[in-house]
Amino acid sequence: MKIIVLKFGGSSVGTIERIKKIAGIIVGYKKKGYKPIVVSSAMSGNTNDLVKKSKAISYNFISSEYDVLVSAGEQISCALISGRLNHLGHKSQSWMSWQIPILTKGMYSASRIININKKKILDYIKLGGVPIIAGFQGINTNNRITTLGRGGSDASAIMCAKFFKAQKCIIYTDVDGVYTTDPNTLKKAKKIKIISYEEMLEMASLGAKVMQPTSIQDARLNRIDIEVKSSFVKKDGTKITKRKNVISNKIIRGISFTKNDAKVTLVGVKDKPGIAASIFEPLSKNAINVDMVVQNISADGKETDLTFTIKSEDLTKTQLLIKKNNKISFRNLIFDKNVSKVSIVGVGMIATPGVTYRMFKALAKKNINILVISTSEIKISVLINKKNISRAISALHKEFKLDK
Amino acid sequence: MKIIVLKFGGSSVGTIERIKKIAGIIVGYKKKGYKPIVVSSAMSGNTNDLVKKSKAISYNFISSEYDVLVSAGEQISCALISGRLNHLGHKSQSWMSWQIPILTKGMYSASRIININKKKILDYIKLGGVPIIAGFQGINTNNRITTLGRGGSDASAIMCAKFFKAQKCIIYTDVDGVYTTDPNTLKKAKKIKIISYEEMLEMASLGAKVMQPTSIQDARLNRIDIEVKSSFVKKDGTKITKRKNVISNKIIRGISFTKNDAKVTLVGVKDKPGIAASIFEPLSKNAINVDMVVQNISADGKETDLTFTIKSEDLTKTQLLIKKNNKISFRNLIFDKNVSKVSIVGVGMIATPGVTYRMFKALAKKNINILVISTSEIKISVLINKKNISRAISALHKEFKLDK
Repeated sequence: MKIIVLKFGGSSVGTIERIKKIAGIIVGYKKKGYKPIVVSSAMSGNTNDLVKKSKAISYNFISSEYDVLVSAGEQISCALISGRLNHLGHKSQSWMSWQIPILTKGMYSASRIININKKKILDYIKLGGVPIIAGFQGINTNNRITTLGRGGSDASAIMCAKFFKAQKCIIYTDVDGVYTTDPNTLKKAKKIKIISYEEMLEMASLGAKVMQPTSIQDARLNRIDIEVKSSFVKKDGTKITKRKNVISNKIIRGISFTKNDAKVTLVGVKDKPGIAASIFEPLSKNAINVDMVVQNISADGKETDLTFTIKSEDLTKTQLLIKKNNKISFRNLIFDKNVSKVSIVGVGMIATPGVTYRMFKALAKKNINILVISTSEIKISVLINKKNISRAISALHKEFKLDK
Repeated sequence: MKIIVLKFGGSSVGTIERIKKIAGIIVGYKKKGYKPIVVSSAMSGNTNDLVKKSKAISYNFISSEYDVLVSAGEQISCALISGRLNHLGHKSQSWMSWQIPILTKGMYSASRIININKKKILDYIKLGGVPIIAGFQGINTNNRITTLGRGGSDASAIMCAKFFKAQKCIIYTDVDGVYTTDPNTLKKAKKIKIISYEEMLEMASLGAKVMQPTSIQDARLNRIDIEVKSSFVKKDGTKITKRKNVISNKIIRGISFTKNDAKVTLVGVKDKPGIAASIFEPLSKNAINVDMVVQNISADGKETDLTFTIKSEDLTKTQLLIKKNNKISFRNLIFDKNVSKVSIVGVGMIATPGVTYRMFKALAKKNINILVISTSEIKISVLINKKNISRAISALHKEFKLDK
């Protein structure tokens, strides 16, 4: 059977007109000989409204009932999609997780799918039916409803693709794919036709909001090929697949950047073993995520400067925590909110020497000063002054031939 | 165990503030030593919104998915009530029909509960939990969601009272009980403290909108005592119970009336066997409900006059159906939209002769002309001119000592 998983996000089912449109997309695949398995999110806005209600009821809403509450929206969207397909003359039925069942484990609101019972769904498909499966939800061994956390419907789709051995898994959303960089910042940004899981993970965690990193990781672990595309316009999207499928002459796949970073520098820190741990311990305990870290070699063996980056919204708290930290001493504390991290991402850099040099040279040519550098296997990030973002991206986009 | 079933209608859980209030009511019963089983409707407006969506998707929405759609609201209200009880420190859990399960049979959107599995709920109650059960819904033997039709949450509550052998079943709503007649029409109307199922059925089908007749019938068949009261104000409500519990010196329990009836008279109908059937057959086929019917004895054995009442909204259609009915002939067709049916209801009339006479005399004293009469065991209805409604009700209310 040519099974295809079609996942529709909240904006793709956000109105009655949108639901009518995606019903047409589903019928299109059926006519091409595919057996579609549809996974749907709740209508956009619906879940947010339920979250708001939970907060009005209790500032500490019990998590088991929270999951019952916030999973109600998928029952509505799935019934409407199925109703529309029946209206068009196609056999279709909604499936809540308890009807399949989709078994999860882990905490409420952050559960993970461990099994999908295939029999009923496969029997239904064999009879010519189109199952509409509620995304984002499952049940646990206590027969209680669980949810999968942010981006949970993507995880549902990928697990359906895995368990039902789908030939394709298409994630329909409100963007038409992944771009070499943000098209709003650089007009020359091009849609990426194919990208590896690893590159996508680096792009996603750095700011590309197409899919949640956990779902990409699920897809990577299970070797599920994904296509991300728009349900609003009929265009090819972006394929996310394993590294060896990505044949390309591009060294760099894309450029991502942040806009809400802040740089913290402790000047003249007493250099002794464990000093970095002493600085970061209270930050970690307060859930402040430290990103880039640079420690200069101490010239005299006594004092050093330590620089790191955090999210801007954590700046006040960080300042406070450092000042009241009596395990460390330093001469001066410098903050800078006007910084941005720009990263080039690409599996091609593994096999290509000199990528770092080309990046630095391209920025130097534009007189853009690099404040901090950090690298991984398939990514090089630099911290620059925020005012230089556009010029930096433009220069790097050109340098690595992403314009073409 | 002192089990009590507490049912909350849509307006009783219509806002976050209302849900907080009814959580307080539930806790109150718990503190009195009761073991509450809560049955909830969806938040008011919620189900109507879903019905509207179904109509926008298809003018003929498939009934199996319609039930999935319109039962989503109860998941929300039950989770919120349970969330609030937990917030107040009381163990509580929502129960959808599939988790119990509540088994139904019959068509979608008009199913009836045939079994409620008691084990899980009773175990939960024994552990000190307050179960919040979704009203209006069940599952069928195919593991699909079904709904119980209009007033279905009342039916859920009554069936819970039956299966769990509840000591009490309280229906919380937005009115504070059943009145001797509509308080908006007659200020002297009094709240009825206790009423029999049979009287309530006659009152309900005649216009008292407190409970759906099918739920009252369910209660009657299963001998479930009900109390209808307001969740908005703290007051005694109305008890609905079996006839022998209703000790009262009142012959008449209440007066109900309609405002949207129309009278149709066929003058000079050819009197032959089966003529009435010929007149009513096309009306029946077009789902037009004929209420009161009077046929005068034909003086010459050749012609007769036939009068009947229908709902005003069916008048145009009825007119058309009679005119194009070639199985009948008549001299003249007369319509009157300015009519109202006034009924006195009470089990007391069975044992009391002369009730009909007293009713007619009371109306005659006020010069109110009676157009049509119809009687049942515990009800006498008369059709009068609509302009006389208030005066008729006032006269009858006084005649049968309902003022006191």
